[in-house]
Amino acid sequence: MSDLFLTEIGELTTNDGEVVTNAVVVVDDGGVSFAGPSADAPEHRGRPLIDCEKRAVIPGFVDAHTHLVFAGDRSDEFRRRLAGESYSEIGAAGGGILATVAATRDATAEDLFELAAGRVRRMISGGTTSLEIKSGYGLDLETELRMLEVARRIGEELPVDVKTTFLGAHSVPPEHKKDPDGYVDLVIEEMLPAVSGLADYCDVFVEEGVFTVEQARRIFEAGAAIGMPARVHAEQLSHLGGAGLAAELGAASADHLDHVTPEDATALSEAGVSAVLVPGAAYTLGSPQPSGAMLWDAGCTVAVATDCNPGTSYMETMSLVISLAVVQMGLTVEQAIWAATRGGALSLGFDDKGTIRQGSSADLLVLDAPTAAHIPYRPASDLVATTIKAGSIVSEIR
Amino acid sequence: MSDLFLTEIGELTTNDGEVVTNAVVVVDDGGVSFAGPSADAPEHRGRPLIDCEKRAVIPGFVDAHTHLVFAGDRSDEFRRRLAGESYSEIGAAGGGILATVAATRDATAEDLFELAAGRVRRMISGGTTSLEIKSGYGLDLETELRMLEVARRIGEELPVDVKTTFLGAHSVPPEHKKDPDGYVDLVIEEMLPAVSGLADYCDVFVEEGVFTVEQARRIFEAGAAIGMPARVHAEQLSHLGGAGLAAELGAASADHLDHVTPEDATALSEAGVSAVLVPGAAYTLGSPQPSGAMLWDAGCTVAVATDCNPGTSYMETMSLVISLAVVQMGLTVEQAIWAATRGGALSLGFDDKGTIRQGSSADLLVLDAPTAAHIPYRPASDLVATTIKAGSIVSEIR
Repeated sequence: MSDLFLTEIGELTTNDGEVVTNAVVVVDDGGVSFAGPSADAPEHRGRPLIDCEKRAVIPGFVDAHTHLVFAGDRSDEFRRRLAGESYSEIGAAGGGILATVAATRDATAEDLFELAAGRVRRMISGGTTSLEIKSGYGLDLETELRMLEVARRIGEELPVDVKTTFLGAHSVPPEHKKDPDGYVDLVIEEMLPAVSGLADYCDVFVEEGVFTVEQARRIFEAGAAIGMPARVHAEQLSHLGGAGLAAELGAASADHLDHVTPEDATALSEAGVSAVLVPGAAYTLGSPQPSGAMLWDAGCTVAVATDCNPGTSYMETMSLVISLAVVQMGLTVEQAIWAATRGGALSLGFDDKGTIRQGSSADLLVLDAPTAAHIPYRPASDLVATTIKAGSIVSEIR
Repeated sequence: MSDLFLTEIGELTTNDGEVVTNAVVVVDDGGVSFAGPSADAPEHRGRPLIDCEKRAVIPGFVDAHTHLVFAGDRSDEFRRRLAGESYSEIGAAGGGILATVAATRDATAEDLFELAAGRVRRMISGGTTSLEIKSGYGLDLETELRMLEVARRIGEELPVDVKTTFLGAHSVPPEHKKDPDGYVDLVIEEMLPAVSGLADYCDVFVEEGVFTVEQARRIFEAGAAIGMPARVHAEQLSHLGGAGLAAELGAASADHLDHVTPEDATALSEAGVSAVLVPGAAYTLGSPQPSGAMLWDAGCTVAVATDCNPGTSYMETMSLVISLAVVQMGLTVEQAIWAATRGGALSLGFDDKGTIRQGSSADLLVLDAPTAAHIPYRPASDLVATTIKAGSIVSEIR
């Protein structure tokens, strides 16, 4: 926990009212004790000084949807898919999600940690200071536990705050292919009790050919009964009713939402369910994006996230996600940056994150740019010069 | 000019036949003296050693279309455009290309150099080892000369090879608004003779409301007469005939091509005109991309480039361009990487670049990834670990 005194901030995005120009941020014991115009700032009093040289400062990114604990390399599958091979051909050749499941089951906890930590270090360098990590490449109790233990260890050993999500119902594993309801029973009766304490949330992939709304409802109700609120993979490839279920259950979030309807948006908004948008997947697959503007205008708490995973969105940093949210989802620049910071924080219950005001956790980014708008304006440049986590500099590029 | 010995290359993209696994590259005096299987490699003989630890090595990127010498900040215009303001509102408020022209006319050569050098340093860190730079934000003789002098100085002072292009006919300047043909006369009679020697190529923005095919033909013929081959801004916003003109004149390249037809593709291929695709612009504007696959299949030499400019594509590094070429233009992963390296080199007459074989310039990238396919597979990660220019390490991230 550190003290800092950031001066000469050209543009400060507080997510707490107006953007402040010519600003100062003061950090005491890892928390923000002042954020505002330099004219109103307290005295320096020997705190370590960062001269921002008129550059922009924004809150650290909160990446609210990742699958970053996994083993195996599916880049060749990506290459072949872009060259015209079909999913069924790739699946028949051993590709797809089950390739990741097989590699993850075979990996030790240490291997999984090293792979995941490498990804998280790149995320930190790109400005992520808090994130969510899902299980779901085990699909058996032992591997799901190992993934969640690795996710917890990421939060303990690296300078990021982590919330974990149990996604045992990510896919029906090969050994239960003929008995998906039996797998749902296993998730509810064996896995959920065992991961209690290791997982903060419970998630189900509600989709044609994966899990039905009814199966998901059973799992979510069992999760809620042991204190694990729902995050829902909803309406990604079809409109099956996952968003409606999320609203009905008062879930923490409904994620993806590529096929969301205006009625869903109203229901999510009224139920206080965050809409977590992950533009990387539809970008990579070349499919249409949902309208972030429609969800925003309906009053939803909108978050944007990487969906970091080896199949459809191997994105480790948030800048391109913000660009896609603006260019392909219709959010304004301000909305997209809010969604990547405060929106993600609210969806994960990180109430003191995603803002820069008195009492916030001092998770701050100094940009190599004069305004936050440069992030989506220059989507191929890494503009995070310095990542500060709880008042400590944890990454510095230039 | 340096010697190097790169061992333990997991995957070597030579652009000269097959990809080689378990490869070695030997550099003597800044040039490649051996590239191939480690079993066939010569002895090490004390050359400085780079252990690639099974990572991939590819040729340095050749960015064949940039407008990176400019002053001013148009991020606020970007922000307002995404928030719904129209181009005419933005233009009326002083935005658009003429905002960049005004700021660039006002900037000193030293200011322009520092701004451009900052961009090129980020490009080098992202793997660009050769590039093209256009003028075109002066639209008067003095500023066009200053831009080209800055572009030449970039090539002299930074570790990149630069080709320069005179783009006096980028837009009709305000002072000639009522007499565009008078401006064309000025370009031909005063500017072209004055920039001879400073510019390697001549370019015209052939577009509705900018310059006609007939005006462009006059400029290109005058340029060719003093040894400046044509690069043509063609078919970006409409189909006006720029690609046909490029084929007729035997231009070095036709660029953008968003509205290219199959007939154009055949004509470009038969005339040996490179097709330089710049996916950043249509990505940023949300407009349809041309089919890179159609141009490739027609036999064109296809290059992909950043189009780095402050209005429509402020992209400094090539990774996202490669991703967009694959995801939005239909190139395969191998084609997109070839287009970003060998394609760019051929379009600029850099015959010894964009390949890794005996006699090539040793412009090499060591990736923080096991295969080149990871570049488009992970579009939000900077995977260029080491940039080597003519055998010298010029950027090293990890």
